[in-house]
Amino acid sequence: MIIIGEKLNGSIPSVGRAIAERDAALIRDIAKRQADAGAAFIDVCASTPEEVELETLKWMIDLVQDATDAPIAIDSPSAKICAAAVQYCNKPGLINSVSMEGGKADVVFPVIAASGWQCVALLSDDSGIPKSAEKRLEVFDALMQKAAQYKIGPERLHVDPLIEMLCTSEDGIEKILATMKAIKALQPAVHLTGGASNISFNLPARKYINRAFIILAMAAGMDSAILDPLNKDMMGLIYAAEALLGQDEMCIGYINAFRAGIFGEK
Amino acid sequence: MIIIGEKLNGSIPSVGRAIAERDAALIRDIAKRQADAGAAFIDVCASTPEEVELETLKWMIDLVQDATDAPIAIDSPSAKICAAAVQYCNKPGLINSVSMEGGKADVVFPVIAASGWQCVALLSDDSGIPKSAEKRLEVFDALMQKAAQYKIGPERLHVDPLIEMLCTSEDGIEKILATMKAIKALQPAVHLTGGASNISFNLPARKYINRAFIILAMAAGMDSAILDPLNKDMMGLIYAAEALLGQDEMCIGYINAFRAGIFGEK
Repeated sequence: MIIIGEKLNGSIPSVGRAIAERDAALIRDIAKRQADAGAAFIDVCASTPEEVELETLKWMIDLVQDATDAPIAIDSPSAKICAAAVQYCNKPGLINSVSMEGGKADVVFPVIAASGWQCVALLSDDSGIPKSAEKRLEVFDALMQKAAQYKIGPERLHVDPLIEMLCTSEDGIEKILATMKAIKALQPAVHLTGGASNISFNLPARKYINRAFIILAMAAGMDSAILDPLNKDMMGLIYAAEALLGQDEMCIGYINAFRAGIFGEK
Repeated sequence: MIIIGEKLNGSIPSVGRAIAERDAALIRDIAKRQADAGAAFIDVCASTPEEVELETLKWMIDLVQDATDAPIAIDSPSAKICAAAVQYCNKPGLINSVSMEGGKADVVFPVIAASGWQCVALLSDDSGIPKSAEKRLEVFDALMQKAAQYKIGPERLHVDPLIEMLCTSEDGIEKILATMKAIKALQPAVHLTGGASNISFNLPARKYINRAFIILAMAAGMDSAILDPLNKDMMGLIYAAEALLGQDEMCIGYINAFRAGIFGEK
């Protein structure tokens, strides 16, 4: 499982304050702790007005790179800002995100074309979020064609099928799991990712929905997730699911993560 | 999900002491709390020497029936004791368990034949626990034939495919999930059950393995489990998995269980 550490996000009140007050120590600390807990990428999201977003991202990226060797996930709703922030990173990271909406892919893909940069790609286009699994697969197909134009291989894409809230669903997550399985069947090298928390919107005790969702999504092929690697219960369940799904022979990864303190009490 | 409340088991030290000291209040309290948390059956297991087991079970069963209306799951390694304890129950419950080993089914099935009693059935026979999925399905077939002889319908059987420990597995739980799916395909009315904790034997932080296992097993058709209904984290994940798997339209069951305090903090 590729963990994209989500904690350096200006929409989280304590992080928003640290950004406003330029509290470098807090940013460095959160970056380092997420990397130590196994985050493959450290997501940085400024959540500021667009006119100061790029300079804020630069400040955050410098601190994260100072604190850890983990690569950056540049997180912005603006494809232009994502593309512009690439220059501040000292190694290839992850763009979070593009979609087939508003020409975003054509802004980001040329910048990362001939590089090791990876990219989260949402399955929406100019008609919005597709309602049916079939329509999502059409958007996926268009995305793969676009990526191929720029010689971006499937192994560099983290496809987010756009997980909708469970509370208004009549068939649970059947459709989203079917979409995930279909994508993995079409392009086994593509990563499947998602922010787990949208699923539990408007429900109580959201953590249970989020955690059970991640496990079921892993069984359907999800191998990347934007989440909090400092959440020991979530991490314990993810390592357990990897072992149960036959991705961790003799549970070596599970036992090592336990010994490293990533979950459980020693 | 049919929860078989596992807490009244003499092998749990506090319960073993309560049995030895005939502490009726503790037995009643654990029975009532499990029923309130949604246990469909209250398992009673004496874990005493066989010469006092039946009288101990009678004492426990009387107390449980005094404390709650939930039916009893009679839990003994001896089929004869299981069959003999049926007379103490004021309504049909669950026998835990029979198998195709040592003629157990022929002891229990005649006693519960013309009744509403249900039965946990382990997929082992006189050659022990089958190694392959194919062999387990052969034992399942023999079990269904035996049940049919006594006119016990598949909806009265909770088949336990005998979950083995993960720590020595090379392919995770692929085989056990395949067995579960095959059984559900052959006999959709059969319940699939299991004690979750064997899976995590010899591993650290066992709760994560147990919980992730239950979720993955539910996706494969498990609809019955022997576990602790007072474990709020486990119950939250089970209700979440039901909603995610499309078994709880609009999450009504999930929301009601939260409101009833079965999981989460209000």
